[in-house]
Amino acid sequence: MSIITIIGSGMMGSALAFPARENGHTVRLVGTPLDRDIIDTASKSGQHPKFDRKFPDGVEYYQFEEVSSALSECDLVIGGVSSFGVEWFAQAVLPLLPPGVPVLSVTKGLLVDDTGNLSCYPHFWQQKLDMLGKDNELCAIGGPCTSYELVGHDQTLVAFCGRNIPLLEKIKSWMATDYYHIMTTDDVIGVESAVALKNGYALAVALTIGENFKRCGREELHFNSQAAVFLQSSREMRKLIKLLGGSEESFFVGVGDLYVTVYGGRTRKVGILLGEGFDIDEALAKLQGVTLESLVVAGRVAKALKLRAARGEVDLCDYPLLMHVDEIVSNRQKVAIPWEKFTEF
Amino acid sequence: MSIITIIGSGMMGSALAFPARENGHTVRLVGTPLDRDIIDTASKSGQHPKFDRKFPDGVEYYQFEEVSSALSECDLVIGGVSSFGVEWFAQAVLPLLPPGVPVLSVTKGLLVDDTGNLSCYPHFWQQKLDMLGKDNELCAIGGPCTSYELVGHDQTLVAFCGRNIPLLEKIKSWMATDYYHIMTTDDVIGVESAVALKNGYALAVALTIGENFKRCGREELHFNSQAAVFLQSSREMRKLIKLLGGSEESFFVGVGDLYVTVYGGRTRKVGILLGEGFDIDEALAKLQGVTLESLVVAGRVAKALKLRAARGEVDLCDYPLLMHVDEIVSNRQKVAIPWEKFTEF
Repeated sequence: MSIITIIGSGMMGSALAFPARENGHTVRLVGTPLDRDIIDTASKSGQHPKFDRKFPDGVEYYQFEEVSSALSECDLVIGGVSSFGVEWFAQAVLPLLPPGVPVLSVTKGLLVDDTGNLSCYPHFWQQKLDMLGKDNELCAIGGPCTSYELVGHDQTLVAFCGRNIPLLEKIKSWMATDYYHIMTTDDVIGVESAVALKNGYALAVALTIGENFKRCGREELHFNSQAAVFLQSSREMRKLIKLLGGSEESFFVGVGDLYVTVYGGRTRKVGILLGEGFDIDEALAKLQGVTLESLVVAGRVAKALKLRAARGEVDLCDYPLLMHVDEIVSNRQKVAIPWEKFTEF
Repeated sequence: MSIITIIGSGMMGSALAFPARENGHTVRLVGTPLDRDIIDTASKSGQHPKFDRKFPDGVEYYQFEEVSSALSECDLVIGGVSSFGVEWFAQAVLPLLPPGVPVLSVTKGLLVDDTGNLSCYPHFWQQKLDMLGKDNELCAIGGPCTSYELVGHDQTLVAFCGRNIPLLEKIKSWMATDYYHIMTTDDVIGVESAVALKNGYALAVALTIGENFKRCGREELHFNSQAAVFLQSSREMRKLIKLLGGSEESFFVGVGDLYVTVYGGRTRKVGILLGEGFDIDEALAKLQGVTLESLVVAGRVAKALKLRAARGEVDLCDYPLLMHVDEIVSNRQKVAIPWEKFTEF
């Protein structure tokens, strides 16, 4: 049995405690400084405040002040921070990693630099580790998985990606259960770009739900227009993943992740509001000003594409849907899905 | 303005009367011998019994006895029969076609021969036309489109496929509206195999809905397992379309069509019953013995793959999901989704 330390007790980090602990490993769940109440609650009740079932018996809970003892002699660190905690994780956690211990991250997103290069968080953190002279390997999880369904033992299929396949297979052997099914791949940029991009495109599919609510009432869902945007999203995602050097297999991971994300949480809610006719500021105000990863990634990818298009490297006409999402989220444009452009492929 | 004759007044054939007539064309809707009541009703009330809005003013209704006058001087024939009317269409309609008039078919499905070759209905009918010495061009429609949403003017994106792109563009100019958006492509086998295959895979996604209903109750939908099977379906569909010589673009049409089909009609219902634990005979009995295109296509494609695998041309391990669906529908096997096989890609 191994010792698995999870840093970040948000929903996804906490959910991974279930297969890990059920497999018999020692599981140490460490809250970030923002997670103090979660760890307090879990210590007392054995339950995450957002889950409807208790953690498996024996999960150990740590506030961040205790992170050093939580990391002591561990075999795997799971990074469970959101994309807004990427810098924090680099500064507060990476320097503390024991030698040789791999990191498995659930954080989804992409970074863009001023020349239009997109990179993923595992690459960003690996560079930080190199600068620190540390030998830890960064791996990551992508694929269609909502935390509460994982907690509920729903059948789930994900991809673990990293440079070192034998290491990934070892981590898989620790984490896989009869409901948590794990592919392994060395296509890090492919998986990471797929699961980041799906956020922007899930917003796009949700726009059509809102448009139909406005037109026909909220009583029933319509699907022709969702499917049309899903089709166009698949096409643009495939092209973007290829552009970034990712494989077709990683694209399939993104398709599955897009499917699950259309139905989950805040991205859907903001997309529906936009489709109903609110602008982005109004929509975010209604959702109490939450910052959405879906909005960030669309803006970053659009920025990268525009910089590359200015150099003649890409044709923005290949990405009419993403460009429109960017106009909506970055420039407060009202929704006007460019349907006819989807026929020109 | 043109004269457009629709043969087959089922839901999809009838739905196409809407954009055609709204664009100002003469539209003649001809019932098959099975459609007698539909034509009677539409003649009296101006409405299809399964639609919640009236046909546009001016649509003309014909019983099949009047097909010759309905075909007189027409510019386009739309074939609106189901896959169970393919032979009938070949025998009863193709010989009557006026010279040079193109056919646009909505019939979805694949045919298999005893050597494992799969072919699509446009090819089948084109061969019949060649044997008759007729010069009509067979074109077809694929893509995500439910008839009742098209009737409701929902935004819809489809592909018209055929050998002759200028002809397809002409037909597109007759049929496209501000809600009916049309791609054109000469990849007939790609589009036709994509839209046929999606039936079998939509059944597969629905299995997981039924399994979760059984496990957790029918109150709420779960999505991790749907998305996992959607991921695997995309992967297998891409491989199958490639095997049949179709393009990546047609695969995207299939992905959109799969998305819409998961939510529509009888395929979903039978998949849910199977997932809840009924065998195929029990499930079909509950649905009053309807014969489903989704069941037929899965069996035919599985037959083709097995014949080809016996010759060493394909590896059945690439299609674990389709093979399982075939076991369920052809051999009354109970549902046992091979989750772990989806990790071995």
